[in-house]
Amino acid sequence: MSNTLGKEFSVTIFGESHGAVIGTVISGCPPGLDIDEHLIQTELDRRKSNSPGTTSRREPDRAEILSGLFHGKTTGAPIAMIIRNKDVDSSPYGEELEVPRPGHADWASFIKYGGFSDHRGGGRFSGRRTAGFVMAGAVAKKLLAEAGIEILACTSELGGVKAGKASPQEIKASRRNEFFCPDINKIAAMQEAVSQAEKDGDSLGGVVEAVALGVPPGLGEPVLDNLDGGLAKAIFAIPAVKAIEFGAGFAAARMKGSQNNDPFITDGKNITLATNNAGGITGGMSSGMPITLRVAFKPVPSIAKEQDSVNIKTLKPVKLSVRGRHDVCIVPRAVVVVEAMIAITLADFAIRARIIPGAVR
Amino acid sequence: MSNTLGKEFSVTIFGESHGAVIGTVISGCPPGLDIDEHLIQTELDRRKSNSPGTTSRREPDRAEILSGLFHGKTTGAPIAMIIRNKDVDSSPYGEELEVPRPGHADWASFIKYGGFSDHRGGGRFSGRRTAGFVMAGAVAKKLLAEAGIEILACTSELGGVKAGKASPQEIKASRRNEFFCPDINKIAAMQEAVSQAEKDGDSLGGVVEAVALGVPPGLGEPVLDNLDGGLAKAIFAIPAVKAIEFGAGFAAARMKGSQNNDPFITDGKNITLATNNAGGITGGMSSGMPITLRVAFKPVPSIAKEQDSVNIKTLKPVKLSVRGRHDVCIVPRAVVVVEAMIAITLADFAIRARIIPGAVR
Amino acid sequence: MSNTLGKEFSVTIFGESHGAVIGTVISGCPPGLDIDEHLIQTELDRRKSNSPGTTSRREPDRAEILSGLFHGKTTGAPIAMIIRNKDVDSSPYGEELEVPRPGHADWASFIKYGGFSDHRGGGRFSGRRTAGFVMAGAVAKKLLAEAGIEILACTSELGGVKAGKASPQEIKASRRNEFFCPDINKIAAMQEAVSQAEKDGDSLGGVVEAVALGVPPGLGEPVLDNLDGGLAKAIFAIPAVKAIEFGAGFAAARMKGSQNNDPFITDGKNITLATNNAGGITGGMSSGMPITLRVAFKPVPSIAKEQDSVNIKTLKPVKLSVRGRHDVCIVPRAVVVVEAMIAITLADFAIRARIIPGAVR
Amino acid sequence: MSNTLGKEFSVTIFGESHGAVIGTVISGCPPGLDIDEHLIQTELDRRKSNSPGTTSRREPDRAEILSGLFHGKTTGAPIAMIIRNKDVDSSPYGEELEVPRPGHADWASFIKYGGFSDHRGGGRFSGRRTAGFVMAGAVAKKLLAEAGIEILACTSELGGVKAGKASPQEIKASRRNEFFCPDINKIAAMQEAVSQAEKDGDSLGGVVEAVALGVPPGLGEPVLDNLDGGLAKAIFAIPAVKAIEFGAGFAAARMKGSQNNDPFITDGKNITLATNNAGGITGGMSSGMPITLRVAFKPVPSIAKEQDSVNIKTLKPVKLSVRGRHDVCIVPRAVVVVEAMIAITLADFAIRARIIPGAVR
Repeated sequence: MSNTLGKEFSVTIFGESHGAVIGTVISGCPPGLDIDEHLIQTELDRRKSNSPGTTSRREPDRAEILSGLFHGKTTGAPIAMIIRNKDVDSSPYGEELEVPRPGHADWASFIKYGGFSDHRGGGRFSGRRTAGFVMAGAVAKKLLAEAGIEILACTSELGGVKAGKASPQEIKASRRNEFFCPDINKIAAMQEAVSQAEKDGDSLGGVVEAVALGVPPGLGEPVLDNLDGGLAKAIFAIPAVKAIEFGAGFAAARMKGSQNNDPFITDGKNITLATNNAGGITGGMSSGMPITLRVAFKPVPSIAKEQDSVNIKTLKPVKLSVRGRHDVCIVPRAVVVVEAMIAITLADFAIRARIIPGAVR
Repeated sequence: MSNTLGKEFSVTIFGESHGAVIGTVISGCPPGLDIDEHLIQTELDRRKSNSPGTTSRREPDRAEILSGLFHGKTTGAPIAMIIRNKDVDSSPYGEELEVPRPGHADWASFIKYGGFSDHRGGGRFSGRRTAGFVMAGAVAKKLLAEAGIEILACTSELGGVKAGKASPQEIKASRRNEFFCPDINKIAAMQEAVSQAEKDGDSLGGVVEAVALGVPPGLGEPVLDNLDGGLAKAIFAIPAVKAIEFGAGFAAARMKGSQNNDPFITDGKNITLATNNAGGITGGMSSGMPITLRVAFKPVPSIAKEQDSVNIKTLKPVKLSVRGRHDVCIVPRAVVVVEAMIAITLADFAIRARIIPGAVR
Repeated sequence: MSNTLGKEFSVTIFGESHGAVIGTVISGCPPGLDIDEHLIQTELDRRKSNSPGTTSRREPDRAEILSGLFHGKTTGAPIAMIIRNKDVDSSPYGEELEVPRPGHADWASFIKYGGFSDHRGGGRFSGRRTAGFVMAGAVAKKLLAEAGIEILACTSELGGVKAGKASPQEIKASRRNEFFCPDINKIAAMQEAVSQAEKDGDSLGGVVEAVALGVPPGLGEPVLDNLDGGLAKAIFAIPAVKAIEFGAGFAAARMKGSQNNDPFITDGKNITLATNNAGGITGGMSSGMPITLRVAFKPVPSIAKEQDSVNIKTLKPVKLSVRGRHDVCIVPRAVVVVEAMIAITLADFAIRARIIPGAVR
Repeated sequence: MSNTLGKEFSVTIFGESHGAVIGTVISGCPPGLDIDEHLIQTELDRRKSNSPGTTSRREPDRAEILSGLFHGKTTGAPIAMIIRNKDVDSSPYGEELEVPRPGHADWASFIKYGGFSDHRGGGRFSGRRTAGFVMAGAVAKKLLAEAGIEILACTSELGGVKAGKASPQEIKASRRNEFFCPDINKIAAMQEAVSQAEKDGDSLGGVVEAVALGVPPGLGEPVLDNLDGGLAKAIFAIPAVKAIEFGAGFAAARMKGSQNNDPFITDGKNITLATNNAGGITGGMSSGMPITLRVAFKPVPSIAKEQDSVNIKTLKPVKLSVRGRHDVCIVPRAVVVVEAMIAITLADFAIRARIIPGAVR
């Protein structure tokens, strides 16, 4: 079940960059949820983004729901959804892989799959697969919304330009700008960084920050199926992710216990936490505080700039300038993808912890 | 199967800090592997550590193998192992949880399990469960060694004191000092930091760095059961972990593509990579380069210093000074635990990718 | 992962009888296998059957492969396949379920899914889902054929008419007659039974017998993931199955040990078994002998004859004569479905036991 | 996870016939359940049985609970339990397997595990592993009892002697006789059959019949994780099982639809079924009727009577008379084991369908 995420709310992904479709099947979605193609489309459109430096490949990415709905509601049956690949140009890719592109999965997949991989546009390893994540995430978000859970993400850093610390309100407002940046004072600098990288034939990385609001205590199944571990596993399925931290993250390693521990406080009725260095997770379970995390994306590996590679047939060194249509920086487009993976993971844990009824009785 | 890690080489964990035992069951270990209690004990003893600031709880942690061996070799049957808890002092803990300790799982587990959790010493959420991880890791390491894979970890940072970048040889040599620090020039400063924290009734965190050598390309099952995602999930099962990064990690987010991409080079016979910013993983699969990762540990939450908490029965605020016997810093003791979780994960992926035959025919 | 069968070769199913499609996603199929739509179609066509008493719904059932192939070969990526529902007539079904049909899943699914199920034509519980099984089975069979494993099934009993014991050759030859009956002397009686039931507005059941040839010893992962248990689980996913037996099955319960045990014999070079009462499975593992099993199908629940039911809104008893287009007996059409479920199960166990390499290195 | 059954209520098994222990770990048992060793012991004692023809191996089978309880209640943590093997006599078994015993797993496991299996007393393939099933089943039964679900089984047939059809009351009463036979008129004949087989150095099989009362509609997760499929998979993990049928089973294959369909009836308030040919399962889900099933056990393969086998080292034919201490018929002892496997399976499906809260909130 290598290709399926989640135990009760399970997501399966299929499709390739230059194949017929990108698709997903959700199994275990509870019945009675209002879902339509418009809901899916809204999320898919956020993934397309219009920020400068985005690929010139123009895909309509129209969601088709193939199963699992009746009278506009989920039925408890699997929900299959696809988008069709329309604007495919395989001309920059030969019949077979000859020169693996540095930073891509070309080489590892060539070895692992004995040379049978579809290498065109990265095949299944392409970022296009994240459209499948986003479609599944749209359903997961809708489900979580029923339980009062909301997931928000933004571009926290891009090409070395850092946004200031953002409140949930600012993160939400960031959906209005094309960088999904919560700090409008940094947008110009981000734009400049992208333009420069584009001019240089180079690419940029960055950091996506996310928060999940309204998560009750008790999500996560310790000690080997933890909430943080589950979120990390889901998020590392996004191409280009190299690191994840929860709450204070790496900074916590430099704190004293007395600084890092989140004290309990009370108003005489409820117990809550005064701070949230833990990022809403203790002992692998949600604590009731917002879940906060940060995800590092490496720069896009496809660059026009010349790089060293090797022709795998002749075993001769070659200089490679990656052709094809590529993003200079995918961080803004990854914002909705990070939200999707968080939503899929929380939906599964919420069903398993009975926050959301999985099957009705 | 919330309590089981791995699909073909599967590890189940049981036991509590103040219960009778800590134990593990390994299922799917291939037959014919030489295993004995001495092998397990050697790893358990590394976890005990003797560094200053380590808990005064003195457990012999004697490994007992209950099943799965015949004539000193694995048989393909499940391997159950336990250590008995001997030096248990439950006196600092009441019959029931009254005041949740900040930074601990007390509160989330109290809610999730309806007040039925064993809270003494943190119960199953205690760091003692990592003894189970280490026992399973000892078997996984032995299995990987047959395939030429070696896993090494060290204390890269402790209480803000950073070791310089370490070679695999230096990491290996670090086993000789009590901090497992690869940079002997930093040991005195680490010792000083621990002494000071101890004096202050406070605690410290740090960073463990690890490398897996000899991993062939192709481990990991994309796109939803990736090697990096699997490692992250396993490592987040270790108490106090708040972040993980592979290769250049968060630093990659600030690089240009031309800086971060690892170029391919050749000697005319083999293809390899000139650098390893990817930390040995591309597209969710091993690339053939060493797998490198860094893990952030928050400071130990149990501190003598007074903290704010709330009595969950009276709903009154209380000042809490955590009694019981605790470490000031668990980072050196966590080194072998990180190694264990990496080993368990690689063993599973290696079997699934046919690097190691799972069942003989 | 309720909707996915198999651990390394995993099959996910989606679609409803009166929805847009029936589909399947295969994950973990090894790369390099020659697959095309013709191969899938040949198996789908066997499922359509032309035997008397088959539904008048006329579906072309054209297989479309959406992903997972490159240059006509599998790539190791998920293989998604669909057929479109063309000849749908939902007129006999109201907007909502009012009167559950006896013998169907209508009632249990109404309760389980809170009234949100798509009840038209049985929705996802319809026998049409078996088209998804057959598509996945076609790929599994091709994979097994590479390892010399062949799966054959036939109609062993229909409406009380029993075929004599059949050899593998006779089972294979049975594909030529419309009842898939290995005993040509019984075809006329089967035809007569179907005609009579049709006249009576009634339906028939029967028994499918299957054999898997060329299965080497060692498939199955004891003691909780056994070959017989895995086959049974897969086969009970076929609608209308009520019983399964391996080898001598229920008859073994009446034998003495001395009669039932299969003795070992040798030609001085190889060891084999003189008889096969065990049906090729001992200790949950294949023994090297042919795997033999028999599956009981209840009669089709949809009958024209009046039956007692209850209107779930008015809670009044009603007489129900099931309209819509239905088979009188699905046993001949189920033959290829039983083969498919056996193939899917054996493919998964074969990959896991390293009989077939799952990922190439 | 080959060695683990169930998704949310998961059972792992370890131990060998001639090893130190037989054990089990239950993960995912909800908190707050009253469990003690006496409860486990009562079920273990039923497995020992005192019927004539039972092995002379005398094991106290004392249950030890190693983890998962606090103040006599489950905590949500894994429950590990063991019994120690005390009366082991390995003298009839050599250092290595030389002559595989017909009807046993000796041969298949020798091949699968490359000769490394512990063959003494059948190793992990011995019926002794069912003590682990019974311990886990005791917890599952307790959990189900909270939801009003009761599981009852009996010896329906032994050595060809058939008991008449039994009501749940008669099945329950059968616990009082040593054959667990619901039809007291047949006990003498069963006794006679056992005595005769013992005299002949031969062995007997039989049929266990079971019923689960109080199961609400909606257990089972269609279409690939069905209730019948799950029960079948669990029950085939019991050694010597060769067939299973639900409700009318094989007899349904010979009925007409009008005979086999269970009509719905109503008292104006509730809807129920007039008959139960389906055995309480339609569409892979419980229907609300009692779940009824029958399980065929082959005769014990270990017999004193001479059989043909082959020495695997010399490849010469040999005559084998199985020494060691064996049962003549295990059917009465299997009654509680069948109950246990049903209980484990229902507990998992009940938690997943929210009949029983898995985690408290």
